[in-house]
Amino acid sequence: MMEKMAEKIIKEEVRVSRRGLLIGAGKVAAGAAVIAAGGLSLPPEAEARHPWPYKKLDVGKVARIAYENWYKDYCCYATASAILVPLQEEVGAPYTSFPVISTRWGHGGVVGWGTLCGTLTGIGIATGLIAGKDGEKILNDVIFWYTQTNLPIYTPGKPKTTIKNVSRSDSPLCHISVGRWMKKEGVQFFTPQRKERCARLSADVAVYAVNLLNAWADGKYVPLHGSQAKTHNRPAQNNCTDCHSG
Amino acid sequence: MMEKMAEKIIKEEVRVSRRGLLIGAGKVAAGAAVIAAGGLSLPPEAEARHPWPYKKLDVGKVARIAYENWYKDYCCYATASAILVPLQEEVGAPYTSFPVISTRWGHGGVVGWGTLCGTLTGIGIATGLIAGKDGEKILNDVIFWYTQTNLPIYTPGKPKTTIKNVSRSDSPLCHISVGRWMKKEGVQFFTPQRKERCARLSADVAVYAVNLLNAWADGKYVPLHGSQAKTHNRPAQNNCTDCHSG
Repeated sequence: MMEKMAEKIIKEEVRVSRRGLLIGAGKVAAGAAVIAAGGLSLPPEAEARHPWPYKKLDVGKVARIAYENWYKDYCCYATASAILVPLQEEVGAPYTSFPVISTRWGHGGVVGWGTLCGTLTGIGIATGLIAGKDGEKILNDVIFWYTQTNLPIYTPGKPKTTIKNVSRSDSPLCHISVGRWMKKEGVQFFTPQRKERCARLSADVAVYAVNLLNAWADGKYVPLHGSQAKTHNRPAQNNCTDCHSG
Repeated sequence: MMEKMAEKIIKEEVRVSRRGLLIGAGKVAAGAAVIAAGGLSLPPEAEARHPWPYKKLDVGKVARIAYENWYKDYCCYATASAILVPLQEEVGAPYTSFPVISTRWGHGGVVGWGTLCGTLTGIGIATGLIAGKDGEKILNDVIFWYTQTNLPIYTPGKPKTTIKNVSRSDSPLCHISVGRWMKKEGVQFFTPQRKERCARLSADVAVYAVNLLNAWADGKYVPLHGSQAKTHNRPAQNNCTDCHSG
């Protein structure tokens, strides 16, 4: 009985899958998802179809989404959604299968532990889906740029509040990055100013990442930086004396 | 013409979706993915259908997958796949829509920067998909436990090599965690011993997370720890004196 039902499901799904093929290669993954929905333990085609097809994005739109979405669900969701929501709209499947809200946990350097800035976690998730191992090179360059750049740069059309300062983190860690900015601005963490800084910074990080992704889509991306682990003979940042005395 | 085609697709997909509903709630997301596949700019149902349905997992299987998969694509993929691959097999969709290999970037504390231990990034991605905001509480508890526990604990059936030491990281950062263990073991980063430590530790982290997820599935999970950001009035770890002198 169960076998017959399974066979029926497969036949139906193959039809759906065929139609998917006619509509366009980008949509085939949906058919694959349905086949798998039968719970038949087929090897997930999602793995074979990764990375996902990328379409060049408009950085103005990306910045606006990142800024606005910071105020919805914080930094990691802000950058992940700034890239993945336009791709859900403009590419469709397989992006539409991924609940972007599931990335919310990256906030505050991962649920408030102050480790990797959530904007960078969001970029990791997005570039991982879009570009696989190439995405790792892009992420590496985004992190390097993040540590070396006075942020935030972005000025929203309708800012929620005004802020005065920019700061260079020298580190991808939330605790250090936001701590340096808070000290300069003279504000505490749970303030409108700090929130505004993180929302604007989310736009900056998403825009920088999308510029690299767009160059990559054009075949013009050349990685700027090498492996941190190989350079330091262990995984490490470049701000050694922040914790180790000379 | 395009509108007519769109209407036809919607009608077809509603039928698929209805069938999905009859088969079981866990499979509905597949229908939703197909609707979205039409590229019609409908709000992605993936968001509405998140979090994804969880089925209690066998921790022995989880540990074996994490250990073996560390040697394929490192720490983040190890823990993410230890949870998500059994769910692809046992639940099917929507897990089968997600390419678990896309999580590889978390290795070495995020592409070698030594920030969040990749095993914890993998847990974040998995618990984000499975449990949403509850997943954040679970992740928070997993991180706390990680910092306080002598690791690794897991002994594989067929170890790739032998190691002697366990260590307590006092930090979720890859650089500190693996650095403390390497110092104790007297080995460098690019060695078989260090690899074995990280592979075994991946099993430990995945098992701890799955024990919490299984308790949560039974309605018996009670968060053990509060918010780091609220406790410290900013995102932070608890090992303050590792970087700040008293």
